[in-house]
Amino acid sequence: MKILVINAGSSSLKCTLFQMPERRALADGVVEKIGEGDAFLSFSAGATEVRQSCEAADHPAALQALVGCLLDEQSGVLTDLNEIAAVGHRVVHGGETSHSALIDEGTLQVIRENSVLAPLHNPPNLAGVEAALHMMPGRPQVAVFDTAFHTSMPPRAYLYAIPYSLYTERHVRAYGFHGTSHRYVTERAADILRTPVDRVNLITLHLGNGCSATAVKNGRSVDTSMGMTPLEGLVMGTRSGDVDPGLFYFLAEWLDMSPADVYDLLNRESGLTGLSGVSNDVREILAAESAGDRRAKIALDLFAYRLRKYIGAYFAVLGRVDGLVFTAGIGENCADLRRRACEGLEGLGVVLDEAKNAAAVGREAVISSDDSATAVLVVPTNEALQIAVETYDVAGGTEPQ
Amino acid sequence: MKILVINAGSSSLKCTLFQMPERRALADGVVEKIGEGDAFLSFSAGATEVRQSCEAADHPAALQALVGCLLDEQSGVLTDLNEIAAVGHRVVHGGETSHSALIDEGTLQVIRENSVLAPLHNPPNLAGVEAALHMMPGRPQVAVFDTAFHTSMPPRAYLYAIPYSLYTERHVRAYGFHGTSHRYVTERAADILRTPVDRVNLITLHLGNGCSATAVKNGRSVDTSMGMTPLEGLVMGTRSGDVDPGLFYFLAEWLDMSPADVYDLLNRESGLTGLSGVSNDVREILAAESAGDRRAKIALDLFAYRLRKYIGAYFAVLGRVDGLVFTAGIGENCADLRRRACEGLEGLGVVLDEAKNAAAVGREAVISSDDSATAVLVVPTNEALQIAVETYDVAGGTEPQ
Repeated sequence: MKILVINAGSSSLKCTLFQMPERRALADGVVEKIGEGDAFLSFSAGATEVRQSCEAADHPAALQALVGCLLDEQSGVLTDLNEIAAVGHRVVHGGETSHSALIDEGTLQVIRENSVLAPLHNPPNLAGVEAALHMMPGRPQVAVFDTAFHTSMPPRAYLYAIPYSLYTERHVRAYGFHGTSHRYVTERAADILRTPVDRVNLITLHLGNGCSATAVKNGRSVDTSMGMTPLEGLVMGTRSGDVDPGLFYFLAEWLDMSPADVYDLLNRESGLTGLSGVSNDVREILAAESAGDRRAKIALDLFAYRLRKYIGAYFAVLGRVDGLVFTAGIGENCADLRRRACEGLEGLGVVLDEAKNAAAVGREAVISSDDSATAVLVVPTNEALQIAVETYDVAGGTEPQ
Repeated sequence: MKILVINAGSSSLKCTLFQMPERRALADGVVEKIGEGDAFLSFSAGATEVRQSCEAADHPAALQALVGCLLDEQSGVLTDLNEIAAVGHRVVHGGETSHSALIDEGTLQVIRENSVLAPLHNPPNLAGVEAALHMMPGRPQVAVFDTAFHTSMPPRAYLYAIPYSLYTERHVRAYGFHGTSHRYVTERAADILRTPVDRVNLITLHLGNGCSATAVKNGRSVDTSMGMTPLEGLVMGTRSGDVDPGLFYFLAEWLDMSPADVYDLLNRESGLTGLSGVSNDVREILAAESAGDRRAKIALDLFAYRLRKYIGAYFAVLGRVDGLVFTAGIGENCADLRRRACEGLEGLGVVLDEAKNAAAVGREAVISSDDSATAVLVVPTNEALQIAVETYDVAGGTEPQ
């Protein structure tokens, strides 16, 4: 059966069509700059490649344009929209919902209620869901939440040390994000390590534009670095990661900024960008460092150092660690940052093989030396496929009405 | 020579008189509730014990009252104020000043400038300095900064991933606190471990009303859990420790609180108090837990869990750890929390001896089992003595003018 996976952002909408259960991607496409007047569509399916400007004032129009490509005679992917048996949606914040859920009035309510915690993500995710419901009424649709994988965390990992009523009344707690990616690489890594997933202990490092680390015990998330919002934890492209909780107050006072301004500064002007002054792109910062830029070096050092500290913290949490897993843009492609993140971890039993590390770019690989007590792996993530798998599991038995 | 050590807080002033270089405490006293109309003085020297209400509208009056006790014929400690050869002051925030400093116009300026970063501490510290300068003009006085021990941290440990100009222009960085205590127990632990202090690697855990962990490499602080303010890091009596940086924004928005209100909530209503709803006193929370209080258990679990994560992180920072050192109120006296903090750390080479741990209350002890790769120690701290030692070092050669 064919499953369409939709990832709707604030100004973009991505689609991937999968043949399930074969896990085969048939086509994928994206419309960017939705509503900005110069929207642009990219689409590929087999030998067909399309790149063109398109009319996309909103998410329904963007979805319509992509579906048009799927139905195009030249691409030959679909002859009828009814061939799509189910639709899976990436939804960032599902609150304390622990599983992917068939979209019904209750699930829509969950997405709406959690918009307050993910104001940049849930509303566009919902716009994608509504566009698909409108276009394919009655077709089973499934919400796959970024937060779901982390609902196995115990209270000691998800609570903050603040008045308890803020948890019970306002749902202030750590939720964690990138869960679909952490789950995907956990299952792949268990396979590679030939360990049943329910017995594997891992530290998974999703290092992309956003970065998060997860402690996985017996295949389940027991702690993760992102918290109530995707701002906590590791240093990211433009996000600060961990800071002194008092810093917010001093910046607001000294710079006469509103809480919203400070939040924006920590989300958009901080991280590698703020420290380096160069870019949020690790490749550009590495190039600047090579050219002798001192701030570029400081930014990369800090990035790797914070990673090492999270790795150490999760060693303490897990006791035994079978594998350290690098994924996402930086994790899959940047051997230099992987090397720096593992520097000095020999005491914890992590020994990188420099040659294997250098050779592993954008593909699955074991990059630790044979005598490393903990394996180090590169596992390219595939969130769209994971969403298709979960959609298949949830909707697989459901006939179109 | 006799050295008077002064620790002036917002509503209290403590004094300890030492005979140096013998490191012998001759007398100590404290005036509490300064300026509150019902000030109270406690003083002890040898067999003399004084407890009485006293007139202390301000810090000079409090110091006058304590000096009166020192000069009292019955206590027999001093016959003349001129016997005090030097005065050492605890000063919380010295900015990037790396050493204890003779108080002169420049040092006073450092204390004043850093008041903005420690508004609750530096102004009363300064009031204590000024009172002593007025009472003992010309006597060498020394500022011993809580931050000084941590000035050996490298940039990757003290910088935040925020716009770099906030560091260069506004001095936004991690400073760390409790440095005098971390330095004192580092030197004691090196002695106990028969390792030269400049070759000892330690994780020192100061667990009192405020809590902080320090990674000590070759006797020097290379990282610490408190940051720009004493709010960052471990869970404390009423302070949150680490939270999502976005939490500040959401609380301000949802609860319609000003940044100052949120800062206050995180400083005064959070931590063990906020989570447990019982108290900021670990003994009372342990009693509540024993009586079946679920929130008390959650608070203590979280406290111990965060400690374990910092311990793991600093293992990654240090590579080799000779000793894990518990100090201050909780660290010296609470075997149960020490046990919980070390639970599951066997993978890192930390093995507690349960019997030795249970027996070590308020005294120096090695509490790890003989086969523990990392020794675990209890070392009662003595910040007043450390201040006396540093004052002696700085002022020892200086003749009264």
